[in-house]
Amino acid sequence: MTDIEHSHTQDLLFRQARTPRAFADIPVSDATMRAVYDLIKWGPTGRNGQPLRIVLVRSPEARERLVRHLAPGNQSRTLSAPLVALLAVDADFHHELAKISPGIAGASEAYTDEARRIRAATNSALLQVGYFIVGVRAAGLAVGPMEGFDATGLDLEFFPDGRHRTLLVMNLGYPAHDAYKPRQPRLDYDEVVTTV
Amino acid sequence: MTDIEHSHTQDLLFRQARTPRAFADIPVSDATMRAVYDLIKWGPTGRNGQPLRIVLVRSPEARERLVRHLAPGNQSRTLSAPLVALLAVDADFHHELAKISPGIAGASEAYTDEARRIRAATNSALLQVGYFIVGVRAAGLAVGPMEGFDATGLDLEFFPDGRHRTLLVMNLGYPAHDAYKPRQPRLDYDEVVTTV
Repeated sequence: MTDIEHSHTQDLLFRQARTPRAFADIPVSDATMRAVYDLIKWGPTGRNGQPLRIVLVRSPEARERLVRHLAPGNQSRTLSAPLVALLAVDADFHHELAKISPGIAGASEAYTDEARRIRAATNSALLQVGYFIVGVRAAGLAVGPMEGFDATGLDLEFFPDGRHRTLLVMNLGYPAHDAYKPRQPRLDYDEVVTTV
Repeated sequence: MTDIEHSHTQDLLFRQARTPRAFADIPVSDATMRAVYDLIKWGPTGRNGQPLRIVLVRSPEARERLVRHLAPGNQSRTLSAPLVALLAVDADFHHELAKISPGIAGASEAYTDEARRIRAATNSALLQVGYFIVGVRAAGLAVGPMEGFDATGLDLEFFPDGRHRTLLVMNLGYPAHDAYKPRQPRLDYDEVVTTV
């Protein structure tokens, strides 16, 4: 590694970054989320399609609508998190391609098949969720990503237009003091990487 | 943003990071790739499942086997890249859960339904691809991710066991001088983020 080996930044983004059990009682501002987005928007996506859409669930009313569709074990944490992000894919992202991908000839025409388009969009949006997690941590926040939710229920509740699909629900905030459990093990390089 | 606002690191990982048209004639060592993996392995995945698997395609023989399954427009770039990574998901990642997710009761049992398991594994592996892209850039390398390939052909060629599925093929290297085209536009915050 060149620039940031063993640095505080690597610790911040990956080594010390953890999913907290509890958040500090400190709000997460819209300005912070704007800074996060303005960083992670540069991450690469297929044909520059940028299909990720983000709903920041801030008001108590919206929070109640959200937790109804979460697994019971996730509800109290989400109610008490300073902010919750609903990360979704726009299945009709290709309507933006003429604007955001002008250099790629025929970009929009490649997505007339809906199943293929949604698969491509979901793949790119999940890469963007990865960038989002790194970007949120770069802002000094901790993330609590959750898979335990009723996706169909969430989609109907927050995306009645039918063109968005929820990928992940994520609690956001500054970690509480003493918020961490012992770290789970990771697979070794030789268990994951082969060279041919 | 706290620690790294406007910093060189943010530029390195996101703002200046770009997909290069050409790579410098500088090899990418296994030690560098090991450092990348040892950083990005800490990124969060569903139930700590870590389903991403990486094949580094280094030898000329393996490179020839790979490019046969790429779209014609991607073949010459991939032949000339210093290194190519084949990023795949292990559909049977749950066999590792007893070891890597001991704190999560019943983690392995939740994945007996194959379709559900592969969907969950693919989602987490794509987040990991996002971390991988950031980690590769943290090492000073540039990435050229490609979607134009015959996934079935690649899977048969490199994963005859049938339990892995190719997600993305990625050229890796140090960017050549003058490797960049003008940057494509990005969607604005208010086009992507709504607050409720």
